[in-house]
Amino acid sequence: MQAVTESAAETRVVIVGVGLMGGSIAASLRQRLPGCRITGVGRTSDRLRQAQMAGLIDEFSTQITSQSCPPGCLAVVCLPVSQIAEAVRSLVSASSGSAVVTDVGSIKSLICQEVQSDPIARRMFVGAHPIAGSEQVGFESAAADLFVNRMCVVTPESADIQHVQRVQQFWRLIGCDVRLMSAEDHDRILALTSHLPHALASVTAACVSADLLPFAGTGYRDTTRIAAGDAELWVQILCGNQRFVAQALESAEEVLRAMRRAIVQQDAAGLRAILKNAAAARKQYGLPTALDE
Amino acid sequence: MQAVTESAAETRVVIVGVGLMGGSIAASLRQRLPGCRITGVGRTSDRLRQAQMAGLIDEFSTQITSQSCPPGCLAVVCLPVSQIAEAVRSLVSASSGSAVVTDVGSIKSLICQEVQSDPIARRMFVGAHPIAGSEQVGFESAAADLFVNRMCVVTPESADIQHVQRVQQFWRLIGCDVRLMSAEDHDRILALTSHLPHALASVTAACVSADLLPFAGTGYRDTTRIAAGDAELWVQILCGNQRFVAQALESAEEVLRAMRRAIVQQDAAGLRAILKNAAAARKQYGLPTALDE
Repeated sequence: MQAVTESAAETRVVIVGVGLMGGSIAASLRQRLPGCRITGVGRTSDRLRQAQMAGLIDEFSTQITSQSCPPGCLAVVCLPVSQIAEAVRSLVSASSGSAVVTDVGSIKSLICQEVQSDPIARRMFVGAHPIAGSEQVGFESAAADLFVNRMCVVTPESADIQHVQRVQQFWRLIGCDVRLMSAEDHDRILALTSHLPHALASVTAACVSADLLPFAGTGYRDTTRIAAGDAELWVQILCGNQRFVAQALESAEEVLRAMRRAIVQQDAAGLRAILKNAAAARKQYGLPTALDE
Repeated sequence: MQAVTESAAETRVVIVGVGLMGGSIAASLRQRLPGCRITGVGRTSDRLRQAQMAGLIDEFSTQITSQSCPPGCLAVVCLPVSQIAEAVRSLVSASSGSAVVTDVGSIKSLICQEVQSDPIARRMFVGAHPIAGSEQVGFESAAADLFVNRMCVVTPESADIQHVQRVQQFWRLIGCDVRLMSAEDHDRILALTSHLPHALASVTAACVSADLLPFAGTGYRDTTRIAAGDAELWVQILCGNQRFVAQALESAEEVLRAMRRAIVQQDAAGLRAILKNAAAARKQYGLPTALDE
């Protein structure tokens, strides 16, 4: 097995799933680590060949094997969340337990639990969630700067400390601001900061029929943008983070009911309090916080 | 009284409330109708003088008088919705019933009802709602192209037909795509396309506390942008369109409950149906419609 020096730059990275996220990681590595050899793993040779021709990957495979996942490599799983745990186990197994594996999944507890059952994979897998993305799909939309100054949550769980450090270093290299936390904390927080906005964007979009859209302005446009995202991916995320998403939606229902009650009762003061509280919270976004280093 | 030729360009426009909307109308007139004399009416001389120095208005007044609202002028009321009807009546009265008045209010029934009680104002007032804006405030953020290709709903109600035509022409000059409809239809539609998105953006923002914002991404950013808007203005809009907004919020609560139920019951098919329906609706936005001329 190839020795892994924690401070060394990666020389061999395997990207499983060369779509928007995987392609953007590849594009970023090309800029920041020109000497790194990148293997793309995916379902269809045609698409992988196009990604190779676009210069994103050096070689590709439609299988996770000891050749596509060589000893000591770093593998990044960029698949829909329901397919991540299985890919992690395959990568660890194909590399004879020597590959360190991270991912980009939007939920972490379920994936980490699924990986825990494998005594080697649980030590080699360091879950991650770079909070970046786009409603676009495919490596054609990949951007080398997609991760720059974006938060990446890393969830060590039962991974070996040196692998955690290596994965942290990898995400920092890509441009992320890395924070460590438990998978459960991640899911509790992201239920509110990411899954709830998606759910409410979908609620808004579902309530406005197409014939009314000529009368929709930039407010509608921005509040519903993410509702155009891939429904299947979001079914997996929302169902996969069931407990915390259900709690978040319940809080939203409470605020919504309070808002409607205030409007029906012409309780301007009550409505004003809700709107002012929301505006004050929103105005904090983007400001420096105590968490910033 | 000065004769009003319907096809003639406006030579004298009075803008009541020189903020973002009023300032943008002035900026647009400067470009498109350089010969037009623009009077700004507002609360504070200092602010109006700054708007004059910025070149947006030719003269200003802190009062609606026969001098600030001369015979035959076109007046545009750009005040918060709760102050519009009173300003309309003052303008009609100050001009001895000769000024044609329009507005930019986001709700129309309540304003039109309030104006109806005045037998002259009801003939001179042609309500309008240009569906354009920004969460910014003040004439410093004014933009001459704010209204270009934006929809402007014009609600004739009991106004004289020649005044309706003049107001339509005015909004087209500013760059808008004008549609005529009743004030009630406007309020029913905008409750869904504008007031609901604002309410749900506020709900999202209210549910995410400031300490979690470092973990919020572009989804949160876009879905909550409008929640930072002026709470007082939105209290007036949401309470002023009580019946239709309450109905819209009730539909949203139903979709939200159905979504939560599907997640709690791990009913992936049910959740998928809701999300796909929402994504399909959203994808219609910005596409050409049968309504387009």
